[in-house]
Amino acid sequence: MDLLEKCRAYTRADETRDVGLYPFYPAFQGPAEGGQAVLDGAEVCMLGSSGYRALSVNAQVIGAAQDAIALYGTSATGSRLLSGNLDLHENLEADLADFFGYEAALVFSAGYMTNLGVVSALAGPGDQVFLDEKAHASLIDGARLAEASGAVMRQFAHNDPNDLARQLAAAPSTSSLVATDGVFSMEGDLAPVAELVAVCEEFGATLLVDDAHGVGVFGRGRGVVEQTGMRGRVPLMTLTFSKALASQGGAVLADAKTIDFLRHTSRPQIFSSGLSPADTAAAHAALREVRRHAEAEPDALAAAAYLRRALDALGYDVADSAGPVIPVRFPDQLSMLSAQRLLVEHGVYTNAVLPPAGEGHQLRIACTDAHTPDVLEAAIGVFASLREDLLPRYRQAA
Amino acid sequence: MDLLEKCRAYTRADETRDVGLYPFYPAFQGPAEGGQAVLDGAEVCMLGSSGYRALSVNAQVIGAAQDAIALYGTSATGSRLLSGNLDLHENLEADLADFFGYEAALVFSAGYMTNLGVVSALAGPGDQVFLDEKAHASLIDGARLAEASGAVMRQFAHNDPNDLARQLAAAPSTSSLVATDGVFSMEGDLAPVAELVAVCEEFGATLLVDDAHGVGVFGRGRGVVEQTGMRGRVPLMTLTFSKALASQGGAVLADAKTIDFLRHTSRPQIFSSGLSPADTAAAHAALREVRRHAEAEPDALAAAAYLRRALDALGYDVADSAGPVIPVRFPDQLSMLSAQRLLVEHGVYTNAVLPPAGEGHQLRIACTDAHTPDVLEAAIGVFASLREDLLPRYRQAA
Repeated sequence: MDLLEKCRAYTRADETRDVGLYPFYPAFQGPAEGGQAVLDGAEVCMLGSSGYRALSVNAQVIGAAQDAIALYGTSATGSRLLSGNLDLHENLEADLADFFGYEAALVFSAGYMTNLGVVSALAGPGDQVFLDEKAHASLIDGARLAEASGAVMRQFAHNDPNDLARQLAAAPSTSSLVATDGVFSMEGDLAPVAELVAVCEEFGATLLVDDAHGVGVFGRGRGVVEQTGMRGRVPLMTLTFSKALASQGGAVLADAKTIDFLRHTSRPQIFSSGLSPADTAAAHAALREVRRHAEAEPDALAAAAYLRRALDALGYDVADSAGPVIPVRFPDQLSMLSAQRLLVEHGVYTNAVLPPAGEGHQLRIACTDAHTPDVLEAAIGVFASLREDLLPRYRQAA
Repeated sequence: MDLLEKCRAYTRADETRDVGLYPFYPAFQGPAEGGQAVLDGAEVCMLGSSGYRALSVNAQVIGAAQDAIALYGTSATGSRLLSGNLDLHENLEADLADFFGYEAALVFSAGYMTNLGVVSALAGPGDQVFLDEKAHASLIDGARLAEASGAVMRQFAHNDPNDLARQLAAAPSTSSLVATDGVFSMEGDLAPVAELVAVCEEFGATLLVDDAHGVGVFGRGRGVVEQTGMRGRVPLMTLTFSKALASQGGAVLADAKTIDFLRHTSRPQIFSSGLSPADTAAAHAALREVRRHAEAEPDALAAAAYLRRALDALGYDVADSAGPVIPVRFPDQLSMLSAQRLLVEHGVYTNAVLPPAGEGHQLRIACTDAHTPDVLEAAIGVFASLREDLLPRYRQAA
């Protein structure tokens, strides 16, 4: 048996293809964000994007990215350490640090690499990493890489500061990293940041909040650290540019010494090409837009609150969540996949969430600033019209 | 002692800053590729970029990236698995597979993540990963992640198929992945792909060649697999878009079943946002340019051969290498850093390579298609004029 036998034996995707319910890798023919998108030549209401502020189609952001390409070309063509560092990167880092209230920032070329690179560089022999059990894969993989160099990885119960405190009390070292998502991307619930800060301060642990899905949405755009009043008390914050900030890449925010350490030691940073000029400029322009509108509540929040109530009233099993994400539960995988397919056929795109992306059998729905009342009403109309097809599945399971 | 104490205790970067020889994170104010670049407001001859074909400033590539932003926005705003997949990605994958002669391709959002995601998804419990001891950090980190799930990681002597054969003969499993760079990025030497293929075929091991620095340069643009006549006999090939392909991101090429497996299981793929529209379109346009000029030898190769001879004739310690990369050795770190600084002050930018990026004390010089004879002559003039300052350092050490 050779190494690739596991690939030839892989049938899971084929099983859903065979019954016509394969939900993955939809190929959009235009922006994958905003109220409407084009899928298989047909217009669909896009309820599956994490571009919460709809800034990837904002004229300022588009112009900034196109201008950066004209001035800097399409690639950094090398590691920032050696040859691919642009003033664009440094200007973005300065504004990120300023806006989020940290001494310094470091930009990575992907959000995934940010968490991977921060956790694996900071945690080593003798250190412990405590992860929320639902923490993003990039934090888990970072902790696994840290394990390979001698750190110990543990998990605490989801959003449970008491379980974390118990484990820290039992742990022999104070040299501990505690990591959690700020907003959990599939369920839409928020981490209890203030309580986690209290526990970490009591035990001398270092808290990292990955606020990929909170930035731009909560805390006047500054995310859940700000929202929970914990500015200045969370030593490490990470974020991604591929959600509200309309680009790709990510950044870590911390004190200046920590950022300097990471600039020179974090392997996903020093062994990757610098973020492309277009992506860097887009993230920077989106940050300016978020900052400019910081005092106004994002339209995505009002849209999601409205949609959440409407789906609940129609009898859908809407899980508790905050912000733009609305999980809708189904009793089993088949009913969830069937619902996803039927909704697409009727012009509404939602995400089918299966392990390892999330637990249970749920559709992940997300709103953005582009979900105007008209767009939402049309989508709600579809959910209403499919009620008789989708809801019996609940009753069968009850 | 808390977790961040190691950051406060980190002094290595400060040591070179204190003596005025800090060589890292130069902030370029314009394209970091091409014959000339702007650093600290002054024009320098750019001999440190890996944009070997100078395509990041090519008009076709720039236009394609700007058009993609206009049509698709600045971000994929989600994982390709769920919501961030664009027809742009699929079209690029189809052309990559066609050009390189594989059944299928899968695009990742960074070159680093490509290797990380392929190795960690394919190697698991009971599998062995054999890495060339100088393999790129992303292959090493992928193997470390695979180790965390039960694989065994081993290294074989650099470019030594006999050592690999000895180790495979001694190993109890045929379920083995062998991974190497095609062109080693710091030294510029090529892997003996034909010999590695022979060993892998003998022992039933699966060969992966990461040709980040060979694609676009060797084998009529198809890299060292083609150059060595091994098309069709290397089951896995990876590449990056941040070198000759003028973008960022990367791709793996393999048989269709393996690609389908990776699409659904590789964590850096499913837990990252899709490559941005601009980056995707830039890589695709660059691929078309490489393909269009496949029959002509890249100007970078002639430029490097000329520069290599000139530096050697001037008495510099030029290491053996092929292609556009020219390592120049110095007896110790101080003399190398001093040379890098002096060259920059005289308008020539080269890369200072220190561990862990490379071994020894060397300047990494690289040529691109933008190095016209005029540009090269000016750079050689600087190397000649600094001869008396730089060469005594050899004699002192000799």
